[in-house]
Amino acid sequence: MSDPALEEKIAALEKKVADLESRVPEDRVTLVVFSGELDRVLAAFVIATGAAAMGQQVSMFFTFWGINSVRRRTLYSGKRLTEKMMAFMAPGSSRKLPVSQMNYFGIGAKMLRGMMKNNNVASLEDLMALGKELGIRMIACTMSRDVMGIRDAELFEGMDAGGVGAFLGDALRSRVTLFI
Amino acid sequence: MSDPALEEKIAALEKKVADLESRVPEDRVTLVVFSGELDRVLAAFVIATGAAAMGQQVSMFFTFWGINSVRRRTLYSGKRLTEKMMAFMAPGSSRKLPVSQMNYFGIGAKMLRGMMKNNNVASLEDLMALGKELGIRMIACTMSRDVMGIRDAELFEGMDAGGVGAFLGDALRSRVTLFI
Amino acid sequence: MSDPALEEKIAALEKKVADLESRVPEDRVTLVVFSGELDRVLAAFVIATGAAAMGQQVSMFFTFWGINSVRRRTLYSGKRLTEKMMAFMAPGSSRKLPVSQMNYFGIGAKMLRGMMKNNNVASLEDLMALGKELGIRMIACTMSRDVMGIRDAELFEGMDAGGVGAFLGDALRSRVTLFI
Repeated sequence: MSDPALEEKIAALEKKVADLESRVPEDRVTLVVFSGELDRVLAAFVIATGAAAMGQQVSMFFTFWGINSVRRRTLYSGKRLTEKMMAFMAPGSSRKLPVSQMNYFGIGAKMLRGMMKNNNVASLEDLMALGKELGIRMIACTMSRDVMGIRDAELFEGMDAGGVGAFLGDALRSRVTLFI
Repeated sequence: MSDPALEEKIAALEKKVADLESRVPEDRVTLVVFSGELDRVLAAFVIATGAAAMGQQVSMFFTFWGINSVRRRTLYSGKRLTEKMMAFMAPGSSRKLPVSQMNYFGIGAKMLRGMMKNNNVASLEDLMALGKELGIRMIACTMSRDVMGIRDAELFEGMDAGGVGAFLGDALRSRVTLFI
Repeated sequence: MSDPALEEKIAALEKKVADLESRVPEDRVTLVVFSGELDRVLAAFVIATGAAAMGQQVSMFFTFWGINSVRRRTLYSGKRLTEKMMAFMAPGSSRKLPVSQMNYFGIGAKMLRGMMKNNNVASLEDLMALGKELGIRMIACTMSRDVMGIRDAELFEGMDAGGVGAFLGDALRSRVTLFI
């Protein structure tokens, strides 16, 4: 015969455990890539590919200047004047990103890339390709895209678009969320 | 009759579950706003108001240059010379924050605000008012305030003041903590 | 006599609780110090020492420009030309770090240090010594070290070296992870 007091305790525990299971972080890492500088974007992709290789589900949200790192071309036609100006001033691809310190009109970025190559460190473009292979989800921030007048055709293929709700949906259940 | 072995197991589980409940993250998001640039402060308030709208308890800690985003006026009398210099050089309100890239003596900030308006995106000041309505807790870092000689009367009304202990008290039980 | 149905439920709960225990964050805080600016490095050490004082196990990963904050001297011999250039341009110790805003060739950094002293706020070097006493683990990013050609003899004594795997190993089980 079962004991009603014990059964009650077990039922209460089951409820609490189910609640805990819904609140404990998943195997998930979420990054906001706000910066559009080679050094910071590199750090983001090193962490993202490392986490994906360790079995984490990785989402990268590209917003503000970070969008410049996932451009594949620049379009001008049909844009407002300010949007054209932004497009003209922004780096047209990851290969043209400046570094955040000692850039000296691009010499710093070239130097960093050269030093990485000398040490057989993967380039940003290698890491991006690796990230795609590892199933990293890349999301363009819809608000940034709209404000800067960027078209999906200007961004990497296979990118999703999402707003702050999509970002928080992933971040709130992540072990690690970083703003880079 | 109850079974002592089972009762013991249940008691052990209850203890473990209570411990887990104290360690699992709460529905809480904590942001450090270290930067005083329009684009970064905007990102902070987009995330903060988004999280509050999704039912998270949100705390924003304004420190270093971030304090400039929550100023309502600048006072000079009774300050040391260095404090006066800081006050003079700092943007006197959120409307005067520069952007982190392509600022060009304020043209970049104006352009960003114009582009946001063209796309019907809420302004920083709208987001700040929304944050207040949504019950976001805004805390001025006491150390930054003291070091820069900023008075509470220079900051938004209704702000709390707190140190690193207050920040960590919130951060350690948050689902997401970002340094912006 | 025990009840097999109850025993089964308890066994299932024990399994779930053990799984939760492995997934809930530890009392741990992990920081990436990417920036090499006095104000940001200060913020990192204020948070790190605060967290350690509150009983958290703290790890700080110094990468890219952040490495400049944990240098104790600069060596030139045996380095490649680009590595020598980097070494020459980088601040040779924490005392030479610039501030991220209003640096004016070092005046800003001196002014910030003076204002901190006036308010009896611990200097960066005090916080670093405190961090060591509190058992904060400091790790130099191996990739940054290799790319910039920095030798261990140029860095603080007692530092560990580690890559993105070491960082994520700590970060994934932390309550708070920040990218500074």
